[in-house]
Amino acid sequence: MKDRKFWGWGSSNFNVDSKIISNLRDLLQVSFGVEEFDLIKPPKLEEILLRSPRFELPESLQPFISSSTFDRAIHSYGRSFRDVWRCLHRQFDNPPDYVAYPRNEIQIQQIFRFASENQIAVIPFGGGSSVVGGVEPTKSEDYAGSITVNMQYLDRILTIDTKSRCAHIEAGIYGPALEKGLKPHGLTLRHFPQSFEYSTLGGWIATRSGGHFATLFTHIDEFVQAVRVISPSGEMETRRLPGSGAGPSEERLICGSEGSLGIITSAWMRLQHLPKFKQTQVVRFKSFEQGVEACRLLSQSGLFPTNARLISPMEAFTNGIGNGQDSILILGFESSYKPVREDLHHALNICKHCEGEWSAADKSSKSGAADQWKQSFFQAPYIRDELMKFGFLLETFETAITWDRFFKFHEAIEATAMEAVQEHCGQGFVTCRFTHLYPDGPAPYYTIIAKSNHDNGLQQWDAIKSAVSQKIIELGGTITHHHAVGRDHRPYYQQQQSPAFGKLMKVMKREMDPQWILNPDILLDRPTD
Amino acid sequence: MKDRKFWGWGSSNFNVDSKIISNLRDLLQVSFGVEEFDLIKPPKLEEILLRSPRFELPESLQPFISSSTFDRAIHSYGRSFRDVWRCLHRQFDNPPDYVAYPRNEIQIQQIFRFASENQIAVIPFGGGSSVVGGVEPTKSEDYAGSITVNMQYLDRILTIDTKSRCAHIEAGIYGPALEKGLKPHGLTLRHFPQSFEYSTLGGWIATRSGGHFATLFTHIDEFVQAVRVISPSGEMETRRLPGSGAGPSEERLICGSEGSLGIITSAWMRLQHLPKFKQTQVVRFKSFEQGVEACRLLSQSGLFPTNARLISPMEAFTNGIGNGQDSILILGFESSYKPVREDLHHALNICKHCEGEWSAADKSSKSGAADQWKQSFFQAPYIRDELMKFGFLLETFETAITWDRFFKFHEAIEATAMEAVQEHCGQGFVTCRFTHLYPDGPAPYYTIIAKSNHDNGLQQWDAIKSAVSQKIIELGGTITHHHAVGRDHRPYYQQQQSPAFGKLMKVMKREMDPQWILNPDILLDRPTD
Repeated sequence: MKDRKFWGWGSSNFNVDSKIISNLRDLLQVSFGVEEFDLIKPPKLEEILLRSPRFELPESLQPFISSSTFDRAIHSYGRSFRDVWRCLHRQFDNPPDYVAYPRNEIQIQQIFRFASENQIAVIPFGGGSSVVGGVEPTKSEDYAGSITVNMQYLDRILTIDTKSRCAHIEAGIYGPALEKGLKPHGLTLRHFPQSFEYSTLGGWIATRSGGHFATLFTHIDEFVQAVRVISPSGEMETRRLPGSGAGPSEERLICGSEGSLGIITSAWMRLQHLPKFKQTQVVRFKSFEQGVEACRLLSQSGLFPTNARLISPMEAFTNGIGNGQDSILILGFESSYKPVREDLHHALNICKHCEGEWSAADKSSKSGAADQWKQSFFQAPYIRDELMKFGFLLETFETAITWDRFFKFHEAIEATAMEAVQEHCGQGFVTCRFTHLYPDGPAPYYTIIAKSNHDNGLQQWDAIKSAVSQKIIELGGTITHHHAVGRDHRPYYQQQQSPAFGKLMKVMKREMDPQWILNPDILLDRPTD
Repeated sequence: MKDRKFWGWGSSNFNVDSKIISNLRDLLQVSFGVEEFDLIKPPKLEEILLRSPRFELPESLQPFISSSTFDRAIHSYGRSFRDVWRCLHRQFDNPPDYVAYPRNEIQIQQIFRFASENQIAVIPFGGGSSVVGGVEPTKSEDYAGSITVNMQYLDRILTIDTKSRCAHIEAGIYGPALEKGLKPHGLTLRHFPQSFEYSTLGGWIATRSGGHFATLFTHIDEFVQAVRVISPSGEMETRRLPGSGAGPSEERLICGSEGSLGIITSAWMRLQHLPKFKQTQVVRFKSFEQGVEACRLLSQSGLFPTNARLISPMEAFTNGIGNGQDSILILGFESSYKPVREDLHHALNICKHCEGEWSAADKSSKSGAADQWKQSFFQAPYIRDELMKFGFLLETFETAITWDRFFKFHEAIEATAMEAVQEHCGQGFVTCRFTHLYPDGPAPYYTIIAKSNHDNGLQQWDAIKSAVSQKIIELGGTITHHHAVGRDHRPYYQQQQSPAFGKLMKVMKREMDPQWILNPDILLDRPTD
């Protein structure tokens, strides 16, 4: 974690291109009529004074546990707006008492034993990229304190099976290290969430992470061949199988368990060959509705485009790839085996049918709007932090809804978001893109940028977050397509979940974690009995 | 159920083509040196004398519950070898005491209430096609009796959403009625298990049924958008979503629950358009190893063939499509949207690389070996019964294993099966085909045909079943790829399952079914405490 910012996204050595920042400033000045920016300076570590640890460690745990200010500060939060806002405002009032860096499962079990005996909360921590409050220590007074377990040293690729195209990988490995280790074998996990650089395999599995590609294998779930989990009551290891019909899927219960049932220590992951053939085409639609219809037809065509990212006029404009009028569809095909020109041709026929237009200039994987988009995609979290320093409010809502309900849903979400923005911030805008396409519906992703001020940002964020989230639930969407539930989505997840499943989660939690020490407050409440 | 055979597979009006039977007789006579067949006659209903129901029904249940001999006899068993053997031998010593035909959920809840209060087992029953002992009443003395719940009257297609290509469908609908209802809308569930004609949507979901198509969407799991389940402690209904990352998947917990957590009453299912383009090519390989390698490469090519059924020389021969020397690959592509010639071309290049050969004569979807295969596929259960009447023993083992372990696994399974056949029956053979292909491994399906006699068939079957099943588990396969666990696979499932998941199933069962009345003996044992 050493080279990481303790208060915001990513590396402390990375700076967003100053040209992008100045473009952004220009855009904000024009859009919001801001004359001068009230810049908040990021905190320095010397400014941070943390509460002393509330309990003492036994000697046996000391060799792999830290209580340094940096470690405790950086593990206080994930990387949501709420988190970074609190960091920028020097609010570190509930850090973990200690941060453990286990190097093996035995050390994790030692932590569980100590924590169980002393009613201490244990917070599993992958890359810490949660934007839903998933890695924050509990504030509950039921606990004597908390230990965050950073998994970064369980980071080996243990076995690569090139014949079956899979690998046994420890859960603490980060995205880039994982891909680097697979590349010499011509293989890739091909799972690129926006957090890719600063998130881990275990975190992806625990949160049902969504990758960058638009169709077919969207969530990490599809790639999990087998998984190993350590919980306070023992271990759970599933059998390595390409497919099975024996009882309910054990892996699927761990996917999305968000550290509440156990800590994922390793997994056998299904891999793919590196793509050899790529084709990208940017298509423009005069109306958003036509773009949506093209996406629907594409999703049901069986063509499975690698990318099919429909971007609303406003969002395209703010990403420097649109004229502010047209909706943009970034359409791409990739294959490790066969040329994809024909598939792209079929897909473009669908676009044509929906009155999409395109030019040869935008047909490439090396340049143009598609590449521009990719760059902004991975830089987005850095840029969010820059905007926050200017006192702007940013939030995203990612959901999924069936096609039949989409337009009504979309209008209501945009309207609710705009109303909330206007009520609480006065000024702002809402943009939308499709991150993933399913034959039965899209995964729309809404971004809100609003004028705020440093003092009221968190209150405003809370108000907007709850208005839009509640509307998503009321209209039948999911509270999260791939960001997970965490603390922030809990109230809405509880409405979305079938009550019967909620009860099942409770009894499973009791079985795996009898003292209820693992990531409390996440997914379910500790029963009062 | 009226037109169904109470003792064997399918319709009482259907007779296997006499030419097929006489070919079979010839084959058996030549292969096994049988001179005369000792034909056992199927039982007539008049021969069957059932134990009287062991308890009385309250008046409220009587309108939709039957205690006729036909109803109780046909619901005594599924359709495994063990089941049909017992039917042919007039063994109906543990019929359900009653068979309920509810027409709505309220009636199911009435049954639950009565059964809970009186410690009566409730056996959910779809089409009754289980080949693993999944629908047989319990023999446990912990129960005062059993009621089988036949879901056939909950058979409506409630809503069709053509925009999102999905439908809300009641669980008791049979395969043909479901497809018939969807066809006018240009839609299909496209899920064709071998039991298709006599199995139901609810049964498919409960058992994680596998369809006919070889890649991509193999299990029913993929098509379940949302599901509704009634259990003794209430209902569970999941949210209708194209994709979600909110907590562990609720639907996946129901898929494969085999009636132990509740009765599935309806589901929203993802549909597909009817295919417009089809291409099939039969490819012959001089060696099985080359055929396997072609399948491995195909599975990892991203081409997703609709069919890629590799058939061992012996199995091809017994199905009338091979010379007994070559392995046969039935390779097919289908699409509702685009011509598939190009994909077939790419797939054939892979076959060529593995020294596969083919002729234009076998390239069609209307005739030739592929069609021949399809016919035998759906007639197989009838033919199995015919062979049983001759006193032959038949069993299938369907599993999945990763590619890296396949050859060692395959040799050991064939050897174990042959040894068991020779030890217990003297004579017989083992054949193999791949039913499904995954990028990380195939789903091999073994068929055993052995010479038996009417007296010892069941003992011999037991011995062979347990020898092969145990070997599958020891070598890392799954005890079932798509036939489910039921009673017959229980001992092996318990070895395959992670013990931690077994404990979770127990606490979930207690929560959903506190009196442990639902399909006892299935998936897990009732705790003795």
